[in-house]
Amino acid sequence: MGRVLIVGSIALDTVQTPYGRVEEELGGAGTYASCAASLMAPVRLVGVVGGDFPQEHLDLLASRGIDLSGVERRAEGRSFRWVGAYSGDMGQAKTLDTQLNVFADFQPTLPGDYRQTEVVFLANIHPQLQLNVLEQCAAARFALADTMNLWIESEQAALLEVLKRVDLALLNDAEVRMLTGANMLPRAARAVLELGPRYVVIKRGEHGALLASREEFFAAPAFPLLDVRDPTGAGDSFAGGLAGLLARLGKMTWDNLRRAVVVGTVMSSYCCEDFGLRRLQQVTEEDLLERYEILRGMTEIAAWNEPSVGQQ
Amino acid sequence: MGRVLIVGSIALDTVQTPYGRVEEELGGAGTYASCAASLMAPVRLVGVVGGDFPQEHLDLLASRGIDLSGVERRAEGRSFRWVGAYSGDMGQAKTLDTQLNVFADFQPTLPGDYRQTEVVFLANIHPQLQLNVLEQCAAARFALADTMNLWIESEQAALLEVLKRVDLALLNDAEVRMLTGANMLPRAARAVLELGPRYVVIKRGEHGALLASREEFFAAPAFPLLDVRDPTGAGDSFAGGLAGLLARLGKMTWDNLRRAVVVGTVMSSYCCEDFGLRRLQQVTEEDLLERYEILRGMTEIAAWNEPSVGQQ
Repeated sequence: MGRVLIVGSIALDTVQTPYGRVEEELGGAGTYASCAASLMAPVRLVGVVGGDFPQEHLDLLASRGIDLSGVERRAEGRSFRWVGAYSGDMGQAKTLDTQLNVFADFQPTLPGDYRQTEVVFLANIHPQLQLNVLEQCAAARFALADTMNLWIESEQAALLEVLKRVDLALLNDAEVRMLTGANMLPRAARAVLELGPRYVVIKRGEHGALLASREEFFAAPAFPLLDVRDPTGAGDSFAGGLAGLLARLGKMTWDNLRRAVVVGTVMSSYCCEDFGLRRLQQVTEEDLLERYEILRGMTEIAAWNEPSVGQQ
Repeated sequence: MGRVLIVGSIALDTVQTPYGRVEEELGGAGTYASCAASLMAPVRLVGVVGGDFPQEHLDLLASRGIDLSGVERRAEGRSFRWVGAYSGDMGQAKTLDTQLNVFADFQPTLPGDYRQTEVVFLANIHPQLQLNVLEQCAAARFALADTMNLWIESEQAALLEVLKRVDLALLNDAEVRMLTGANMLPRAARAVLELGPRYVVIKRGEHGALLASREEFFAAPAFPLLDVRDPTGAGDSFAGGLAGLLARLGKMTWDNLRRAVVVGTVMSSYCCEDFGLRRLQQVTEEDLLERYEILRGMTEIAAWNEPSVGQQ
């Protein structure tokens, strides 16, 4: 079994949704992705926290077997904080406050043994930092990167360099349109692939995910949740689940990529069911398989040429 | 093989998209649905046109075997006209002008032999007219109805009565949220089912369609088009394809409903490829099967318990 290296934020989130509010909850892209990936494969996390960061949060991650030797602890600094709110269909967070604190001058440095990790997930950080990480772990067999509208607008050159070097790019529908200028998502997906990566996943929130290679598309619906209590971290849980399954399977085939997108979909669904990591951290392999099979069942298209079709 | 009765508008559309403009093109919900359904099963159309309606348009529909004896021709009246424009992701039309003309006091009256039709599609017309039609064809084995935001806001009592009496309700995501007050689409689907119909289809444009029964969900992605030249009529082509396959298969099972949603998806994809009916009218059964199989392939989720999963 391979391992997963995850580089991203470790945060204290204050989140308001129609279902309630949490203050200084364990959050951050690196955290969500690590939690999801660690159900599938051993995880190594790279990030930074301040002296105010609750030890219990680190203990929780460690209890999942996540290697925290790449998490820098700056005793004198304050941890990254994010304050956001969701309303309506909760498709997008409204950011009310961002305090980068120790994250402002985060320079990811990989412990020596991290450099041989098989699968690398670069969560949404400055593309120049993503490049630095890619240089440090050139032996990785598969790298995937997330990004955001800010970098697409302001750091396009570095971002394009990242896209040249990763195997899979993760973007949401608004980001992929912004990056490529294409309105139709299948065309936008193709345009991203022309920038370098072998695969692209377009995350569409409640509408699921679209995976594309140069030859094919794979569409996975979102898991049909009746309630979303807090979508924070859904995209990162998706990416973590995806990276985790790829590491576990070892072979980065198209079929395994498809399976990995479904595992990511399941992980993000559990993430959305409660605030922070509350539900995600309890997910068992049995839970995962249950929703995996439900998604299989709810997407299966019966063959046309069965006896009942084409005749009365 | 069963037949399909379609009640809806027959229009002259002027449409502007980033790909061009057409003037007084054959359009209307009843027209699109009939064209799509007629590839699958015999169709009977109910609608109204004015004395100015080009005979060639009626000839086109007749050439597809569509029974036009339910189309009222008012020599003294002007035909229904719609002017709309699309931009960006073309998810929604901007209506620039609507001239109801003869459609304003349209009172659908079914020729006697129409009353025995097996499948009835009530395209988007006033819900009171939909009710009138349902009373005229009480022997129908399966009825489906489309609607729009205007009726949800202004004619809710009549619309709720329609929903009690049909087997399947078709709504887009904005409409289903407006009707039910539920933000999450799976919950909104359930809420619609509580209003009466056995099935609901939530149309999500480029994100595909969600079919729900009281027990299950089925998610179909949109066909991955690289270009959409004109989405006018996509939802009606979807409904027509769906109704047509149900009529052809005769058995209204959950599996056939799923197949019908895929056929609708394929029909709407062809509809979007050119202005008006230009592409849709050329679709062959071979074209349909080709995209049906592509959709099957792009949604298939490999089993978890195959040899390569769960072990390296």
